[in-house]
Amino acid sequence: MSALGRVTIVGLGLMGGSLALAFKRAGVATEILGCGRQVLLERALEMKAIDGGSTSLLEAVRDAGLVVLCTPVETSIRLLEEMAPVLKPGALVTDVGSTKLAFAEAARRIFGSDAASRVLPGHPLAGREVSGLEHAAADLYQNAVWALTPLDTHTRTDAQRKLELALASIGARIVHVTPAAHDRTLAYTSHLPQMLSTALAMTLRDAFESADDPALQVHAGGLRSMLRLAFSDPVMWQQVAGSNRENIAAALEACEKELRRLRECLGREEFRREFASAREFAGFLKKDR
Amino acid sequence: MSALGRVTIVGLGLMGGSLALAFKRAGVATEILGCGRQVLLERALEMKAIDGGSTSLLEAVRDAGLVVLCTPVETSIRLLEEMAPVLKPGALVTDVGSTKLAFAEAARRIFGSDAASRVLPGHPLAGREVSGLEHAAADLYQNAVWALTPLDTHTRTDAQRKLELALASIGARIVHVTPAAHDRTLAYTSHLPQMLSTALAMTLRDAFESADDPALQVHAGGLRSMLRLAFSDPVMWQQVAGSNRENIAAALEACEKELRRLRECLGREEFRREFASAREFAGFLKKDR
Repeated sequence: MSALGRVTIVGLGLMGGSLALAFKRAGVATEILGCGRQVLLERALEMKAIDGGSTSLLEAVRDAGLVVLCTPVETSIRLLEEMAPVLKPGALVTDVGSTKLAFAEAARRIFGSDAASRVLPGHPLAGREVSGLEHAAADLYQNAVWALTPLDTHTRTDAQRKLELALASIGARIVHVTPAAHDRTLAYTSHLPQMLSTALAMTLRDAFESADDPALQVHAGGLRSMLRLAFSDPVMWQQVAGSNRENIAAALEACEKELRRLRECLGREEFRREFASAREFAGFLKKDR
Repeated sequence: MSALGRVTIVGLGLMGGSLALAFKRAGVATEILGCGRQVLLERALEMKAIDGGSTSLLEAVRDAGLVVLCTPVETSIRLLEEMAPVLKPGALVTDVGSTKLAFAEAARRIFGSDAASRVLPGHPLAGREVSGLEHAAADLYQNAVWALTPLDTHTRTDAQRKLELALASIGARIVHVTPAAHDRTLAYTSHLPQMLSTALAMTLRDAFESADDPALQVHAGGLRSMLRLAFSDPVMWQQVAGSNRENIAAALEACEKELRRLRECLGREEFRREFASAREFAGFLKKDR
């Protein structure tokens, strides 16, 4: 199956590189082009992730049937605007950004009444704490939830159907959701957990003399799992936080309130009740898959 | 090596059962007795974790050279008081409770000037989210940090030296710390992470209709690692929280302040700086071992 025709992947980091490798392995494109810095293009060619590419955005996307923006949210919006005039008719643009409303609104602004057929924003939930092409893997999206956030639930073009088939063929589990609902949900299921991990590291930083303080040896695996996200990329998260500020602020305020509630009943019967009810709710993770 | 003589393990759950299995495998005791409910004694005998045992505390500990209390903090304090009159001279008591100051103070109250030689409080950092004898494993303590909190840093009896050798022989990494410093450190490295995980589950519970809300499908591995601790035992944690209330409250307040700080600079340059500095500090985990 080579249903997608020519695919251009813009941004050859962990996400873009992995998608190129996965599309290659599944054989869903007649040709895969990359767009990024020269050194990344060479590396991606060596890895056989792409068939060719260009450092010039306009050259790379000109004849593509599908363009996938694998850059941080703000960059993707800027590139969408730049490439719009040269895209061929029927070409579809998607992206992998962590928030969707700002990108969807930019698409509406740029493409007007064609936006819903030209742009299908997406978000694969498959990040890692490492980044960069060197960590790219053909199976990164295997079993990952891939949110697609159509600008309009009635529009469903041929190119969009082909994209969904291609994503399914690399093992992604597609979920449809509106851009606004996506950003609200992610504030709780992804951005809040990230803030908690980072705030935990900040709290430790301020509570101990230094990272070499021998007292810090006295910890168990729980600390390790709670600090895993703190190793994420600050620049990427600055953009995520900026593009979903209101939802994240609401989630943070709600969580600060829960922490205060726990603090005020430490060791009491109310504490045990809250703890048990939270544990029961967390069970949704076990129903998964 | 059977340096420890007769060892009595009180409380045959995950911690006690695993310790019995580990001591057995290392051959460090001439005899291992259990103390707990009849059904647990029978199960532990079948598993060859113990050589015998009793449901009666006084009977179980009477001739022991070492007694290990593997019960929640408050229970251990009560049992220490009960067994004190029947312990043989030279017998040592240790425990595995998650906080140490309350237990150390109880030991001083019960044994007076002999406390430092009769009781050596301990805390292996090797919990799991599952509990119960059925999950006990001989290698639970392999590579785990085992905090020992002597009541007095000058006292070091023969029985205490033998206990340390036995713990080293089951793979534990012993760290000495005062009871007060232990409880302060653990508030940050263990109790705060637990509260954050539980508060995250509480926040999700309040933000979504139910655990079946399909929106909750849209999450990645990060949520899973941040909710892992939320599956811990509410009754055990009620006791931990009650026995380390002031330290945990201080850690929570500090963390609530950091969350507020992040919330107030979402997406800004200050956000990136805080995020990057937290990430750098979290690097202490990588120096580990």
